[in-house]
Amino acid sequence: MPDSHFLSLFSCRFPVIQAPMAGVQDSELTIAVCRAGGLGSLPCAMLTLEQIEREIKYIQAETSAAFNVNFFAHQQLDYTDVLENQWYEVLAPYYREFNLDKTAIIRTGARQPFTQELTDLIVDLKVPVVSFHFGLPDDNLLAQIKNSGAKVLCTATTITEAKWLQAKKVDAIIAQGLEAGGHRGMFLSHDISAQLGTFSLVPQLAQACDVPIIAAGGISDASTVEAAFALGADAVQVGTAFLLADEAKTTSAHKAALQSQRAEHTALTNVFSGGVARGIQNRFIAELGIHPKAPPFPYASFVTEPLKQAAQQAGRDDFSAMWAGQNARLAQSGTAKAIMMRLLGQFVPHSTKK
Amino acid sequence: MPDSHFLSLFSCRFPVIQAPMAGVQDSELTIAVCRAGGLGSLPCAMLTLEQIEREIKYIQAETSAAFNVNFFAHQQLDYTDVLENQWYEVLAPYYREFNLDKTAIIRTGARQPFTQELTDLIVDLKVPVVSFHFGLPDDNLLAQIKNSGAKVLCTATTITEAKWLQAKKVDAIIAQGLEAGGHRGMFLSHDISAQLGTFSLVPQLAQACDVPIIAAGGISDASTVEAAFALGADAVQVGTAFLLADEAKTTSAHKAALQSQRAEHTALTNVFSGGVARGIQNRFIAELGIHPKAPPFPYASFVTEPLKQAAQQAGRDDFSAMWAGQNARLAQSGTAKAIMMRLLGQFVPHSTKK
Repeated sequence: MPDSHFLSLFSCRFPVIQAPMAGVQDSELTIAVCRAGGLGSLPCAMLTLEQIEREIKYIQAETSAAFNVNFFAHQQLDYTDVLENQWYEVLAPYYREFNLDKTAIIRTGARQPFTQELTDLIVDLKVPVVSFHFGLPDDNLLAQIKNSGAKVLCTATTITEAKWLQAKKVDAIIAQGLEAGGHRGMFLSHDISAQLGTFSLVPQLAQACDVPIIAAGGISDASTVEAAFALGADAVQVGTAFLLADEAKTTSAHKAALQSQRAEHTALTNVFSGGVARGIQNRFIAELGIHPKAPPFPYASFVTEPLKQAAQQAGRDDFSAMWAGQNARLAQSGTAKAIMMRLLGQFVPHSTKK
Repeated sequence: MPDSHFLSLFSCRFPVIQAPMAGVQDSELTIAVCRAGGLGSLPCAMLTLEQIEREIKYIQAETSAAFNVNFFAHQQLDYTDVLENQWYEVLAPYYREFNLDKTAIIRTGARQPFTQELTDLIVDLKVPVVSFHFGLPDDNLLAQIKNSGAKVLCTATTITEAKWLQAKKVDAIIAQGLEAGGHRGMFLSHDISAQLGTFSLVPQLAQACDVPIIAAGGISDASTVEAAFALGADAVQVGTAFLLADEAKTTSAHKAALQSQRAEHTALTNVFSGGVARGIQNRFIAELGIHPKAPPFPYASFVTEPLKQAAQQAGRDDFSAMWAGQNARLAQSGTAKAIMMRLLGQFVPHSTKK
């Protein structure tokens, strides 16, 4: 187990962060992890301001432990009819297959960027930890958050990104290795060839940075936690393994896929949102992979979402994003607390496990 | 340190295999690693039968330790004028840049497949360990090798490949994670999206297989060795870190690149040989990446080799394959013995290090 700097900095008993997973969890999982001694996270990228406020207040009512609230800090690019039409042209054969036409395309529901209103909410509610994906919000908003006393975390996928984050004075850096499920947090470069595996990113960031490094990507059991610590991590962030928690809202189809042999093949794709993310290989990913015509994050979802809905109504997950990391096969179901105790293995005194 | 099964099986003192690296080492490195207590390897894919015989006899004269002889077991596909012309069309602008034309294309020097003659040599010379990349030779040749008493190793890059190798009764499996430098040993599928990082491949193979698992890909210092053992590896195979050994034949340009910031960006490419391999990003890789028009391994080299030669004569490494893994930045130079002692770190008694 690493030294206790991380634990005192983030006021938790164990160096385990439950990865925020938009769309498959709410505050129930956050609270369960906090109560078990880890740092629970609330994903806010797909919630309204009102929903976020309600969830944070609910967490604070249920536990006095520290918790983490996560946002996407992407730059919102312009969305144009040209981008939409290009993508629709690619997906038109699938639309026809489900008897859909262009009128099915939506223009709502995309992940929201970070704003002054969200900053005010964080400050007002005295949120203890805030994490960002896809870089950081602008300096002005970041300063307000830091001045409120909140600790700030952000994802890095390369050494260059980690050094950039350190210069911005984040409190710790999440080293997201290529094995990780869900969206890749890359923000300074979108060159996928430069993305590093967990086994390379963690030790190189541990050498290059002075702040604590949180290993993410493939942390699914006690052996991988031990390996992450050996590589120099101060803590781990665990996503896929918590998808199987009783307290998660993962769909039964997603859970079944995670626990089947299908989970042996996860792949990077941009077809769901426009952002590159890792999920269980299905027909949509197999046929389009990383497609140059997908509009930038988060807009691709406007054209893909109707396909997902139609396919799901037909009982098929061919067009559903089933995010998962490469070590999904090592994860096991149970309560969030049981999952965390298994992850910590030898590092937890027997008496604490009850 | 894992239990001693691997050590007794392969008759070495330490669970470290020096990765065979065709083109950048000869028996000098093999012998140095054997003398230091590891399993030294001789890469044979680019040597003639006579050269291989001479090298093996030289190793046997210099050390009584076990050593490993490595071959490529790829299926030799047909090479056609159509394939060559397609590839030349892509490279023609570079040819013009160096005042070359089509007559510069070569038809020799490609990596050789495995044959009965090579099998006879292995059996006659009583080679103790034989390793294969790109799958195994046919059952008849494999049986002859195993009957000679040689131990057989082979690379797996997926769970499916590992199970296939285990059914063929190899003595141990090299788990080549995506971080590894040089050619990827994939042979049952060429779908790069299904390739696993070291952090995922090693624990999953350790669970799925009964034979010893040798972790490869990113093993460059004591921390990464410790992490590999935590993930369930019985031994490690180290390539990039030995490229910096005094006894390697790595070019000075290649060594300089390995020890510079350039090594932070390695990428997968097929432009050098047609096979997907990881090397330090240079102009050729940046501009062509993994190119669909590159002829299958090993034929792409017929058209790219003249470019490499011309560029090198102009003092440029833009068209040279400088193989390296993602943890090249952790590697340090020195004698092969010093490199191995650093890798083993805490696992080696102080008295042995002298």
